[in-house]
Amino acid sequence: MRFTTQLLGEIMDKLKVGVLGATGLVGQRFVSLLYKHPWFELSFLTASEKKSGVKYGEAVNWLITSELPDDVSEVKLIKNDLEDIRAYKPDIVFSALPPEVAVSIEPLLLINGIHVVSNASNMRLEHDIPLLNPEVNADHIGLVQLQRTRGWRGYLLKVPNCSTAILTLSLKPIMDILKIRNVFVTTLQAVSGAGLTGVPSMSIIDNVIPYIQNEEEKIENETLKILGSYTNGVMVKPKINVSASCTRVPVIEGHTEIVFVEFEGDVDLDVGDVRKSLREFKSNKVKGLGLPTAPEEPVVVVEALDRPQPRLDRLVNNGMAVVVGRVRVVKPLNLLKYVVVGNNLVRGAAGTGVLIAELLTHYLRRVGDFNVRS
Amino acid sequence: MRFTTQLLGEIMDKLKVGVLGATGLVGQRFVSLLYKHPWFELSFLTASEKKSGVKYGEAVNWLITSELPDDVSEVKLIKNDLEDIRAYKPDIVFSALPPEVAVSIEPLLLINGIHVVSNASNMRLEHDIPLLNPEVNADHIGLVQLQRTRGWRGYLLKVPNCSTAILTLSLKPIMDILKIRNVFVTTLQAVSGAGLTGVPSMSIIDNVIPYIQNEEEKIENETLKILGSYTNGVMVKPKINVSASCTRVPVIEGHTEIVFVEFEGDVDLDVGDVRKSLREFKSNKVKGLGLPTAPEEPVVVVEALDRPQPRLDRLVNNGMAVVVGRVRVVKPLNLLKYVVVGNNLVRGAAGTGVLIAELLTHYLRRVGDFNVRS
Amino acid sequence: MRFTTQLLGEIMDKLKVGVLGATGLVGQRFVSLLYKHPWFELSFLTASEKKSGVKYGEAVNWLITSELPDDVSEVKLIKNDLEDIRAYKPDIVFSALPPEVAVSIEPLLLINGIHVVSNASNMRLEHDIPLLNPEVNADHIGLVQLQRTRGWRGYLLKVPNCSTAILTLSLKPIMDILKIRNVFVTTLQAVSGAGLTGVPSMSIIDNVIPYIQNEEEKIENETLKILGSYTNGVMVKPKINVSASCTRVPVIEGHTEIVFVEFEGDVDLDVGDVRKSLREFKSNKVKGLGLPTAPEEPVVVVEALDRPQPRLDRLVNNGMAVVVGRVRVVKPLNLLKYVVVGNNLVRGAAGTGVLIAELLTHYLRRVGDFNVRS
Amino acid sequence: MRFTTQLLGEIMDKLKVGVLGATGLVGQRFVSLLYKHPWFELSFLTASEKKSGVKYGEAVNWLITSELPDDVSEVKLIKNDLEDIRAYKPDIVFSALPPEVAVSIEPLLLINGIHVVSNASNMRLEHDIPLLNPEVNADHIGLVQLQRTRGWRGYLLKVPNCSTAILTLSLKPIMDILKIRNVFVTTLQAVSGAGLTGVPSMSIIDNVIPYIQNEEEKIENETLKILGSYTNGVMVKPKINVSASCTRVPVIEGHTEIVFVEFEGDVDLDVGDVRKSLREFKSNKVKGLGLPTAPEEPVVVVEALDRPQPRLDRLVNNGMAVVVGRVRVVKPLNLLKYVVVGNNLVRGAAGTGVLIAELLTHYLRRVGDFNVRS
Repeated sequence: MRFTTQLLGEIMDKLKVGVLGATGLVGQRFVSLLYKHPWFELSFLTASEKKSGVKYGEAVNWLITSELPDDVSEVKLIKNDLEDIRAYKPDIVFSALPPEVAVSIEPLLLINGIHVVSNASNMRLEHDIPLLNPEVNADHIGLVQLQRTRGWRGYLLKVPNCSTAILTLSLKPIMDILKIRNVFVTTLQAVSGAGLTGVPSMSIIDNVIPYIQNEEEKIENETLKILGSYTNGVMVKPKINVSASCTRVPVIEGHTEIVFVEFEGDVDLDVGDVRKSLREFKSNKVKGLGLPTAPEEPVVVVEALDRPQPRLDRLVNNGMAVVVGRVRVVKPLNLLKYVVVGNNLVRGAAGTGVLIAELLTHYLRRVGDFNVRS
Repeated sequence: MRFTTQLLGEIMDKLKVGVLGATGLVGQRFVSLLYKHPWFELSFLTASEKKSGVKYGEAVNWLITSELPDDVSEVKLIKNDLEDIRAYKPDIVFSALPPEVAVSIEPLLLINGIHVVSNASNMRLEHDIPLLNPEVNADHIGLVQLQRTRGWRGYLLKVPNCSTAILTLSLKPIMDILKIRNVFVTTLQAVSGAGLTGVPSMSIIDNVIPYIQNEEEKIENETLKILGSYTNGVMVKPKINVSASCTRVPVIEGHTEIVFVEFEGDVDLDVGDVRKSLREFKSNKVKGLGLPTAPEEPVVVVEALDRPQPRLDRLVNNGMAVVVGRVRVVKPLNLLKYVVVGNNLVRGAAGTGVLIAELLTHYLRRVGDFNVRS
Repeated sequence: MRFTTQLLGEIMDKLKVGVLGATGLVGQRFVSLLYKHPWFELSFLTASEKKSGVKYGEAVNWLITSELPDDVSEVKLIKNDLEDIRAYKPDIVFSALPPEVAVSIEPLLLINGIHVVSNASNMRLEHDIPLLNPEVNADHIGLVQLQRTRGWRGYLLKVPNCSTAILTLSLKPIMDILKIRNVFVTTLQAVSGAGLTGVPSMSIIDNVIPYIQNEEEKIENETLKILGSYTNGVMVKPKINVSASCTRVPVIEGHTEIVFVEFEGDVDLDVGDVRKSLREFKSNKVKGLGLPTAPEEPVVVVEALDRPQPRLDRLVNNGMAVVVGRVRVVKPLNLLKYVVVGNNLVRGAAGTGVLIAELLTHYLRRVGDFNVRS
Repeated sequence: MRFTTQLLGEIMDKLKVGVLGATGLVGQRFVSLLYKHPWFELSFLTASEKKSGVKYGEAVNWLITSELPDDVSEVKLIKNDLEDIRAYKPDIVFSALPPEVAVSIEPLLLINGIHVVSNASNMRLEHDIPLLNPEVNADHIGLVQLQRTRGWRGYLLKVPNCSTAILTLSLKPIMDILKIRNVFVTTLQAVSGAGLTGVPSMSIIDNVIPYIQNEEEKIENETLKILGSYTNGVMVKPKINVSASCTRVPVIEGHTEIVFVEFEGDVDLDVGDVRKSLREFKSNKVKGLGLPTAPEEPVVVVEALDRPQPRLDRLVNNGMAVVVGRVRVVKPLNLLKYVVVGNNLVRGAAGTGVLIAELLTHYLRRVGDFNVRS
């Protein structure tokens, strides 16, 4: 008999979780999403050494509209230290650490049997690390089995790059019906993507910056991994070319992506079919699993000519949906054009991270090895 | 013997010119560029009927950094009326009218032997109307000869759409050395492109609007006309596909365009060659003609990874240059990517308009028919 | 026996209400706040004649983060016409009309026994019209009794100017403990205060506009009326001078006000006392009345040096609280300085309007004349 | 016989100058203003140790619209080190260092006979340091004579805080005709005031920050020193109270100040008189001295209701003028209200610094002790 996770939610004890790097923008989102989560109990928060011992409410520059709950505000931050963390006996930790910090602490946790859902950009492309955008490729989670050879007792699951998470969610339903050859994507990314102090106001007011370090490579590489098929333990990348050009714009939250898709040969391109496939998203891999953070509609299609817009659409389905608009085809060119907006901090980071952890919980229950804490 | 225009500037009387629609953003730029112009004498300014009789300084919401000169400020506006305009005996008028107004007044002026350099979007694609971005296609001016059949005694020359003027100036030096198949361009356009009140602040602060009415069609069609070759009175469009996706961003002035160029077949793509061709722009069609507004370098190539940026680069060469950066190639895809920034009001409108009028002056002198006023 | 409104909420039928001018920014807020309101049933929405008959969802440029409910979206707009409105037999209408429209339709409704809660700026200062910021001056509602001489069968209640609503809520608790002589206030107002298209982006990006038409007069006059005392049918204005200087800043929502308060003579100025009085706000006139929209804490005092900030504090208590910070005193000058932020569309318009209607409902119940519909 | 500085400009060799902290925003302005200065020859630029040896053009993030001249771009940066600086034998150095760096290097230069014009905020209030806004208090330069007791052979002259420079220039002509009691000023300061990275975009887009560290104290104290009278070696502060409340707004350049001025007793307040005094500014202390950077009109009065605005007025008179508007009086309150905009980097920093150095040059010539280099 297979457990439904719905049932799971009712019968199991909550899993203990913590957030690494809890004061940054992504860390704050993790805290916000994990607070009163039905499956997870938020037990500890980490920060850099100089903030350790300080109350979260004093250390954080809380930028989320919903207020920081008082009890979380009182939590004392701990260091990114194995022993300090182990003291809380967590089942899963969420990492919002920068890659240069993640690279040392995450493996220690894994060796010690703690699962890690990590937003850090390192290791995303390694062959045995699932890079998960659950609706698109939940089945890739099976890659964790390959991690045994690393000597880890916990699993490492990576959250995709923000722009890539948004892009792949919009590409998957198109791939389901049409053979894509090339994807040319221009991103207009919000300043929150660079963290609390990443983009000085002197750089971006009344301006556009047409460059984001390493971002184009991430989109080009991660998209292929996420859209790859995983069968019998073998990953096969799709024969698609992805080329990106990334810009920063004066927007607080919400990435906008302008997408040109060229299809193979004799495709019968119909804009209605594309819209329908986006709307229905039949290949949604977490549908029916009962994951609490999975939005009913992960892809929302809008008809208004001037939508989607980041300020107006970044909170659709609590920031877990991507909103697609301006879907149009140019038949003679075998070309599809559209615009997609997604919340870079939720769908592009913490929200997808929490969804991955829910998927992991379901996976562990199903495969019967959820014995980490014992 | 051929006159050099340098000489021309010295010996001839200044031509009398006026600006139609002088209070709008493009009109203001025309006024600013024509004030103390070496070849042209600014004689009158028009506005809508309700402002006629009002002093320019009182009617205009002057948004140009350099101050409105006192003598221009005192000029009384006249209506867009043939008789009122004829009273000034202009040689050339510059039109910054909206197309729905331009469509009635411009032909009247032409019939009456007044040359019109028009920024209005109507008629740009008609076969006998030169759509000029002078460095790119100054030779298309010969199309005016076909206008005789319209019963006009003046010539009509059209200024391209702002995004198109910027795009074509960057594409021409590439076309000079490589065979282009497809151009996919995403524009990030400044709010000034929509005029003084076109974009409400409620729509654009902390936001992107992924749609500008008719803009994509203009770019797609006008680019092909401008890049066409004109030989023996025959226009031939290049076999290039152009597809655009346009957005509005919270920038005051300066359009940014993200360009993907796919080349034909077995091209030997070298990024150094492309940069060199952009820098040298050997096919520049107005080089050496001595047109006062022609920039020494109409295409400036920058190396800094994070440039061009509209706030920092919109005034390069007084706004008459386009600034190209992030030039990079993806060999396996036969793909070139770059970013170009140009001043939408100068290079994209009034500056190119004045340059066209200078070209016209040169043309008339050369072909010996500058007898309009006699 | 006196009804508690809590009880009222349970036993009474919902009152029928409508919104005049429902497509504008304030109208949208009314719709949002009245949807599923416990006491009111939203029955109709009006708009200008050319939108009448159009579905609300098609006519409105919905700019509120929470989604427009489907059933409201389907409502067909009606005209601002007495007969069209009477057909719905409303008890109360909320008016978000511009004053030049309000001036003709509102009196017709009043004559016909419909109560009007109006955000329009006309008539706010007339002696028999309550200008209500309920926590501050709910008792002024008694002024409606004077309206009988106008031949109206409904009551007219006015919502204060947005900046004034925010200012008076912060001044009242100070007045409760200290004798104010002068108030010098500088406002930094959000663009939404000017409506959907009131402030062009060309005017405000990278800029401040130090002028808002009629705004300073409204603040200076309305503040005195709201802070006046009303005893035995007599209104007495406080002996306070208010002087304002208003600016527009590039902020979407949330007005910031910088306040200097000079006190009379030998005041014993203690910053702790001021903070305490603000926090406790003992004179809150609607405390305990059970009005659904009344915030638990209408005045929130923050300690962080860099707060309040409009983007971060405009949704505190659903936008119904004002947030006060930087409270400091300069003893030798008998001077108090502070900063207050409030949501101009909620606390400064629609939210206060709904609260006024709740107060009216309570008032009618209490005085026993709620017989309008019969 | 007294030299006129006009003459001085012709006969003397240029003085050798350098800029300390040349890569920051104020440093860039110094470089821009000193390039091709008629009296000064820019000889060296310093930066922090890690940039020393690097070419200026590579080390600087040049944010000034006019292009960085090629020859300056090639200059190699030196350290903030006495010996390195002395090697250039400068007459005057301009310091754009942060106070914590200025405090160690500036005295060393002074001991070694190098004059220092410093924008660093330390020591501004010391009794023997002239804090100069030349048009207002050029005569305070005599305070340098008191510096002899410090063992310095060079003179130290301080540039005022940016907001204070702008404020005092607008207050002086008012003081000339009316007895001021209180000044209540609210500032809306541009992000450039905090340097290149001082204000993160996450903090200020769609927002206002109502706090700038130490800024209010600087305005309150420095204003009194600058407006003080200096007679027979004695400084007397005016009996004026100044109280400030400072905010940061999303503006790149140009501070806006909203000023309330209360006058003493039985003043005859006439708005025309105030405007006239501002316009004429008869007490301008550098008028006729021929200082190259002194603007013809340091105070510009505008009549348009919605001016001054930072984006439109920050470059008036090359950024050296302050622009005053909305001048209005409230007779019963003995109150004057106005708005003043000034360029924080030019008038509020580097421009005033260069003007101070010109004044110093004039002073040295006149008093006959310009023997530093000999």
